[in-house]
Amino acid sequence: MSIIEKLDQRAKDVGSLLCVGLDSDIKRLPQRFLKKEHPQFEFNKWIIDQTHQYVCAYKPNLAFYEARGAIGWSELAMTTKYLQLEHSDIFLIADAKRADIGSTNQGYVTAILDELGFDAVTLSPYLGQEALEPFLKRKDKACIILCRTSNPGAGEFQDLEVEGKPLWRHVAEKVAGSWNKNSNCMLVVGATYPKELQQVRQAVNDMWLLVPGVGAQGGDLEAVLKVGLNSQSRGLVINSSRGIIFADDPKKEAKKVFESIKK
Amino acid sequence: MSIIEKLDQRAKDVGSLLCVGLDSDIKRLPQRFLKKEHPQFEFNKWIIDQTHQYVCAYKPNLAFYEARGAIGWSELAMTTKYLQLEHSDIFLIADAKRADIGSTNQGYVTAILDELGFDAVTLSPYLGQEALEPFLKRKDKACIILCRTSNPGAGEFQDLEVEGKPLWRHVAEKVAGSWNKNSNCMLVVGATYPKELQQVRQAVNDMWLLVPGVGAQGGDLEAVLKVGLNSQSRGLVINSSRGIIFADDPKKEAKKVFESIKK
Repeated sequence: MSIIEKLDQRAKDVGSLLCVGLDSDIKRLPQRFLKKEHPQFEFNKWIIDQTHQYVCAYKPNLAFYEARGAIGWSELAMTTKYLQLEHSDIFLIADAKRADIGSTNQGYVTAILDELGFDAVTLSPYLGQEALEPFLKRKDKACIILCRTSNPGAGEFQDLEVEGKPLWRHVAEKVAGSWNKNSNCMLVVGATYPKELQQVRQAVNDMWLLVPGVGAQGGDLEAVLKVGLNSQSRGLVINSSRGIIFADDPKKEAKKVFESIKK
Repeated sequence: MSIIEKLDQRAKDVGSLLCVGLDSDIKRLPQRFLKKEHPQFEFNKWIIDQTHQYVCAYKPNLAFYEARGAIGWSELAMTTKYLQLEHSDIFLIADAKRADIGSTNQGYVTAILDELGFDAVTLSPYLGQEALEPFLKRKDKACIILCRTSNPGAGEFQDLEVEGKPLWRHVAEKVAGSWNKNSNCMLVVGATYPKELQQVRQAVNDMWLLVPGVGAQGGDLEAVLKVGLNSQSRGLVINSSRGIIFADDPKKEAKKVFESIKK
């Protein structure tokens, strides 16, 4: 089974396109976790236990773990280990937005894909395909390339027009073309830009897209589903982080988003 | 003293534009360090003791530490602490190539600039100024934005033409313009592209540039110095990593590059 098939299978099995973002900012954890020896891990474990039946993927953002240095890194490793043991069929995304020159990327490959054991990692396209080859050549792992990001100022460079098309469109076409020779590429397109999402879908056929920005960032779920699904009515990993993990009742909130997507 | 003045002062004091890249890949460390409890730190300490009189800056690339997980992160922290104690006037660059949406970047700011205490961090421009504001607003720290990277495939997106100019040129102009309101920005321009370096210098006046790619990557030092210096005959942080730290005699090699730059 290819790595994208793992994602597709899980999405089919639970009938869900929901990804829960484990953006477990230590400053926002409920008081009861702060007394524990491994607060970020214990919080993540609780969120996973509450929400796993509703998700196709989990996506920790590495910034929230690195903020605590070596300790945070250890608790992230505990989190991925727990997921691999308990829920090995769930797709595991490292939101790391990495990219370096070729030989240096090998360090990130070792850290994120091998040691932490993530199925996929988010990557910045600016250095080009040649630089990212250490990631791209890993047929057993998915590469999720930033295309149109969800932040309000995303357009500063991404919208610049090159030969009549915005830069993000060139990124989409290159990734769907030559970068995807191992059929392991995906793209990041923010839920906050449904018009762009529609054009990306047209440009990349059935490729899976990671769609952050639903929930706290205000993306419109209905609009995303209307224009973003692929020909199998899947192809979107719809991420919500703060809106679910910091809700009063994360299980109820995950179920709510899960059902909104189903409908 | 502003953060760029710290760099300028150090460069003046030792008459050096040399940066040694602490890319201390565990797989390449000399055997005698592998027996120690903290091999990456002990190697770095040795390199620092051998080379400090010749450098204006040190630049660990975080990939080589993350590759070892929490342990690598600890040894990176030991390295920055050692430098802060022994050589607080040397400019400390985290080569991390980070960038996320605004609120998430705060995690990287805490990790890299506050906890590890780096003076500067390399950042990817793709998400735009608005996203990078948590870095840019830190007047006490420098933001080094990728402009024209040193890798062979750098041009795939960086050379795309927007309104008659390559994308990297737009990055240079935006950073030198609105991004630099706190006078804390620098740009990355690879030594492997002297023609582009010359154009960046013309576009950004006296702004300091980080120039990797001398040494193992084959950049031409003479060409870099000919076209890249600013009006004070400084303005370049010329980085060599593997060429110095894995030389048989790192001290001799650092002195050699130091003297080549002086000449």
